[in-house]
This record gives sequence, C-alpha cells and structure tokens, in this order.
Amino acid sequence: MKIIGVVDTTFARYDMGRSAIDELRSNGTGFTINRYTVPGIKDIPVACEVLFKEGADIIIALGMPGKMPVDKISAQTASNGIMNVQTKWGRHVIEVFVHEDEARDEKELAWLMDMRSREHAKNVLTLLFNRQKMTEYAGQGLRQGFPDVGSVEVPLKGGRRH
Amino acid sequence: MKIIGVVDTTFARYDMGRSAIDELRSNGTGFTINRYTVPGIKDIPVACEVLFKEGADIIIALGMPGKMPVDKISAQTASNGIMNVQTKWGRHVIEVFVHEDEARDEKELAWLMDMRSREHAKNVLTLLFNRQKMTEYAGQGLRQGFPDVGSVEVPLKGGRRH
Amino acid sequence: MKIIGVVDTTFARYDMGRSAIDELRSNGTGFTINRYTVPGIKDIPVACEVLFKEGADIIIALGMPGKMPVDKISAQTASNGIMNVQTKWGRHVIEVFVHEDEARDEKELAWLMDMRSREHAKNVLTLLFNRQKMTEYAGQGLRQGFPDVGSVEVPLKGGRRH
Amino acid sequence: MKIIGVVDTTFARYDMGRSAIDELRSNGTGFTINRYTVPGIKDIPVACEVLFKEGADIIIALGMPGKMPVDKISAQTASNGIMNVQTKWGRHVIEVFVHEDEARDEKELAWLMDMRSREHAKNVLTLLFNRQKMTEYAGQGLRQGFPDVGSVEVPLKGGRRH
Amino acid sequence: MKIIGVVDTTFARYDMGRSAIDELRSNGTGFTINRYTVPGIKDIPVACEVLFKEGADIIIALGMPGKMPVDKISAQTASNGIMNVQTKWGRHVIEVFVHEDEARDEKELAWLMDMRSREHAKNVLTLLFNRQKMTEYAGQGLRQGFPDVGSVEVPLKGGRRH
Repeated sequence: MKIIGVVDTTFARYDMGRSAIDELRSNGTGFTINRYTVPGIKDIPVACEVLFKEGADIIIALGMPGKMPVDKISAQTASNGIMNVQTKWGRHVIEVFVHEDEARDEKELAWLMDMRSREHAKNVLTLLFNRQKMTEYAGQGLRQGFPDVGSVEVPLKGGRRH
Repeated sequence: MKIIGVVDTTFARYDMGRSAIDELRSNGTGFTINRYTVPGIKDIPVACEVLFKEGADIIIALGMPGKMPVDKISAQTASNGIMNVQTKWGRHVIEVFVHEDEARDEKELAWLMDMRSREHAKNVLTLLFNRQKMTEYAGQGLRQGFPDVGSVEVPLKGGRRH
Repeated sequence: MKIIGVVDTTFARYDMGRSAIDELRSNGTGFTINRYTVPGIKDIPVACEVLFKEGADIIIALGMPGKMPVDKISAQTASNGIMNVQTKWGRHVIEVFVHEDEARDEKELAWLMDMRSREHAKNVLTLLFNRQKMTEYAGQGLRQGFPDVGSVEVPLKGGRRH
Repeated sequence: MKIIGVVDTTFARYDMGRSAIDELRSNGTGFTINRYTVPGIKDIPVACEVLFKEGADIIIALGMPGKMPVDKISAQTASNGIMNVQTKWGRHVIEVFVHEDEARDEKELAWLMDMRSREHAKNVLTLLFNRQKMTEYAGQGLRQGFPDVGSVEVPLKGGRRH
Repeated sequence: MKIIGVVDTTFARYDMGRSAIDELRSNGTGFTINRYTVPGIKDIPVACEVLFKEGADIIIALGMPGKMPVDKISAQTASNGIMNVQTKWGRHVIEVFVHEDEARDEKELAWLMDMRSREHAKNVLTLLFNRQKMTEYAGQGLRQGFPDVGSVEVPLKGGRRH
C-alpha cells in the first residue's frame, strides 16, 4: 500500500487538493492519501518534509502564486524549498503551481487550477506505479492544463528509437 | 506543554512580536513562549535554529523588509534561510513579513503589521494543535492583514468534496 | 561496467534523451544506460538523486526551458537542484538545456536540441573514462550545439604550456 | 572566555574590521578576537566556517559590495553563504555590508563604513552576552550607520506590553 | 606537502588554468597541483568536490561567463555551488570569473583573463601558507586584473590600528 501526500493552501482561490484527490481516486488504487493544508506556498516545503516523515512515497504540492512581484519571489522560494526536500528524500514532489495571472479571468483561472491539478495527479500515479512508461512520452511537448504543444521533431540523422 | 517561538526584529517599525504574543495568549493555552529579538530579517533564520534547539515546536517569525531594492534581496535571503531551517527540522516557521511599501502611509503600515501578525498567530495555533482543521479552508483565497479575496470556484465536472 | 544515467522530460519538444543515448552508444562501450523520464525540468534533480542511488556514475540531464519569464525561473530552480545533487554525490550531472527561444524557428530548435545533446554526450564519455583529456581543450572557447567561438589568446608574458 | 570572529576583506575601501574591533574592545570584556581577512565578499562564508571550527561563538562579517550589477549578485551569493553557515552552526554571523553606492561621496562612504561597523559591533556584544535585552528595542525602527527611523506605532486595540 | 586544486573550463576563451599554474609555480613551493578541466562553469562545483575528496587544501576555480542573460544566471548558479562546496569542506575555493563583457575587445579580454588568474593565484598562496598576512591589506580597495581602487579612509575618531 503506497502513500500519496497532498499538500495545498488556504491562499489559493480554488480547492486544487480536492481536484487532485478526485483524479487520483478515479484513476487508481493501491494507495492511501495523506492531505496537509497550509496557509501559503512558502509553508508547502515543510509540510512535504512532515509527510515524507509520515511515510509518503510521493507528494503532489498545489499552490497559486499571486500577481504581485513579491508573490513571484515567494513562489521561487517555495520551489527551492520543494526542490531541497525532494532531493533530500529521493522522492518526487510534483509541484502544481498556477500563477494567478496565467488566466484571463476568474472562470479560466478556476478551470486551469482544476485541470492542471488533475493532469499532474495522473503524472503522480505514473511515476509511482509505472515509471518506465513516462519515457514513451519523452520530448512530446506535453503540458498540464493548457493544451500540449507537441514535438518539433525532424528526420534523424540515422538515429533510431530506443 | 508546547513551546511557541517568537522571532522579531529591532529594524521593524512596529512591535509585531507583541501583537503575535497578545493574540496567541488571547486564543489558546497549553503553550509557553520563547521570544528572540534580533537586529534585522537576515538574523531571523539563525534565531529560529537556536529556538528549535531550545525545544520550540513551531515558530512565528516577524519582520518588515524596507523599501529599497537591497531590502528586497535581504528579504529573499531571509526567506531562503527560514525555508532551510524549517525543512531541516520538519517544524513550521510561519513567516510574517510586511513590506514597508505595502501600506499607503504609516498609519496603515502600523495597522497592517498588527493585523497580519495577529492573523498568522491564529494560524500557528491551528497548525500546532489542530492541523486537520486547516483543510476546511483549502482554496478559499484567505489572506492575512488585508481582506480575504475568496474562491473563484465554478461547478465541478462531477467532482465531490472530500 | 559503468552506469550512465539519462534524465529527460515530456515537456521538451524533441526527444533529447534518444539523441544522447544514440551518441553514447555510437562512441563508446563499457557502460549501461539507466533512463528516467520526468514531466518537467523541475523534476530532473530528484530523478538524478534516484539514479545516483541506483548506481549511476555520471548523468546527462536534458531539458527545454520554455519562453516565458516563469520558465526562466523554473530553469534556475532546476539548475540549483541539479547543482546540489551533483555536489552532494561528487559525480557529474551534465546539464543540457536548450531554451526554446534560443532558436529562430522550430527546425533550428530541433537541430539544436539534437546537436547539443549529442555533443554533451561526448563530454560525458570523456569525463567518465578519460578526465585528463579534457584539459587539452581548456580555454578553447568550445560550445555545444552552435559552433565553437575559439580562443582569444595572445602571446604570453614568458608563460609556458603545462 | 568567549571568542568573537571578525571577517573582513581587502576589496573594501575602508578598514571595517579595525572599526569593529575598536568598538568591541571599547564596550566590553570577557572575549578574545579571531580575525580573518579574505580577498572579497564571496570568500567570507568559508572564513566564517573556519572561525566557527576554531571556536568562535559569534562572528561579525564586514564587506563592501561594489556598484556594478555583478557586484550585487556577488553580495547575494555571499549573503546566502553566510546564511547557510550560521544556520548550520546555530551561531550568529552579523553581516555588515555597506554598498559602495549607498553613500554620496567617498567621505560619506568612509563615515558610513566606520559607523555601521561600530553599531553592529555593539549588537554582537548584546547578542553574545545579553540576548534578552534586544527585545526592549523590538519594532523600534533601529538602523546601523544612518539614523534610526523610529516606530510607526498607534494606540493598540486593547493590547498590552509584554 | 600541500595540494592546490585548479579547475577550469573548455568554454572559456583563454587558458586561465595555465596562467594560474604558471603564477603559482613562479611564486612558491611546497605544493603539488591537481588540475581538473570541465566543459562549463556549472560543472566547476562538482569538480571542486572531487578535488577536495582527492585531498586538495585549497582550490582556484577559473571561468568565463558569457554575455547573454542566460550566462549570467549560469554564473550565479555556479557561484552558489562553489559557495556550498567550500563552506561544506571549510576550505577556500577562490573563484576567478571574468565576464566576457567586462573587456572592450578580445585583446583586453585575453589580458584580463591572464592577469586576474595570476593575481588570484597569489591570493591562493597567501591564504594557504600565510593567512594572517592578508589582514595587512584589509580595506585597501584591492582588485584583481584591473587596477586597485584604494582606500577612502579619513582620520579616525580616536581609533587605533590593530
């Protein structure tokens, strides 16, 4: 039985944790969920540390950085913290950040936060249960939330698929 | 008996530590307070390290970055240090920074520094004594100091509350 | 028998991992390859950590940061993570990043992603099997992908080659 | 007998270490000084590490970042290094940086470098021998070098001094 | 017998490692040199880690960041990595970076890369064999490559030289 950690915030304007959990439960079994909600994105890394200590095999960390310059800095600090925790443990923390200014309006923002959370939840399941499968999509220009942009591939100079 | 660390600075233009302690004492029991005042925000992380060594279970770290570009860099350095200390220990350091240029005038600045300190002090109590309760507010667009901005939620595609 | 780790992403728009592996296999023997594909560049460092734990002696990490400012920040976070993992282990992670806006069009982008991956794959082999040989090219203005820019050397003040 | 480390640079345009040592000796006893001069600010953190290994209880680190953008980046790198060393050891490194462009001319620059070094030297003594006293000045808008800016405090909503 | 590590790159447009080694050998004895050439500046920190593991007492790390914004970020990442390695080991890594756009033309670039490498090589010898001597030059406005800028010192308020 694997444990999937879900970390989210009260700062975000959409319940991304719920979307992620819904998607996880709709697409797989063999895991339990340990959810930890914190005030803001800079509180996410220590929550990841706590969840790893409590046994999580992988974590999905969801947040919505605000529009102000200071929010961008906070996002960077949070990302660096998430980076340090996952490399220390050797376990993935899939960071799902939706910047508030990525969307044109609140409706699109809600859609994007829901969709990116769901698509990354699927990545979590693949990385946890079937890591090798990810290589089938290497270099395919995949995106989460907005549409995939695809490959720019041209004929190889004598190359072959591995 | 839990120990709550309170770290603040002589650089700030309002006694945020006093506000935080007042709010902590008005809203809970079962804890003692260990307060550590340092000159500036870049001295906060090592004070957190010392307080954790002295047994703190959680820390509230209060500071006021100045208006100059060099102050913004100092705030980032301080945040990264706070991040490293809390992830090392696996215990929260709730960072309460009020940027001097967030407020229109000194009166609003004083109000904001008092209010944000108090609202984050409540978060400290929740995280320390009742972590699961935080999830009830996930994605609700909560803010500390200025008013909450609320959720942008739209009807879910078959989703359900967890 | 050495182990070379290959880390790449599904976000990239060209299968850089395939190019690197093709070049490695065309230029050397005495190694096996352990490939790990992740969603985006910020997932690369933890994949490197996992591969080092699984025995990799050196890693080539391939990614394509996007064009947006937020992508540049992600690249920086990823690079810092890669830096921490390789200095922790004392083993090289050769970072092969092609920024999407380095190329004039998709055709050049594909060419650049292929070529830089291949040229860095050769660096991996040299560092792994014949580290001293690299010094022969010190200060020669070598580049990977785009052409070498060469040396600006002028006559030395009594200096001698070592 | 406590040990106070003093780290300074040959890059700075004023002998800040001398000012700090003069102030330390004029204001206290019960300590010895271990001074370590390095070429530039990016060499400061490792000097701090060495001094802590040699027994320093606290360190004052003095430097003068130059005017160019690259100097600002160096200052940030140095600050992050200082941060890591002090949080690792749980002992203060009081960073005294005077940016070359903070002053209007060379005379003011010399004055500022002398004054800020001296005022932070007093902070070092307080933190080392009488940490609790620092709280009396919490939120008072203290500065080192240029004049204090003071508090913006307004009547509290029923609050009380602690 | 001390060991001095020399790390340089194939990316640089001048053989800085040769200049450093020439200067080291012209100015001192009692050491051997362990040289490690890597592709680019972001590969320098792990090479430092390897050389420290192989016994280096001090390292001189030489590189030439390019002109593009992405090169500036790489330099910052490299500097942070160098910082972490040297503070971890408690041994100096003297970073000698010449930014490609510091010089007006290729001739000056070559001169600057040679000169700065040589002047920092002398710093390496001083730090390794005679650390206390460095304090004689504290606050003297020393530079490496371009001319020293000197001190801005004014008469002290009753201060004395230490």
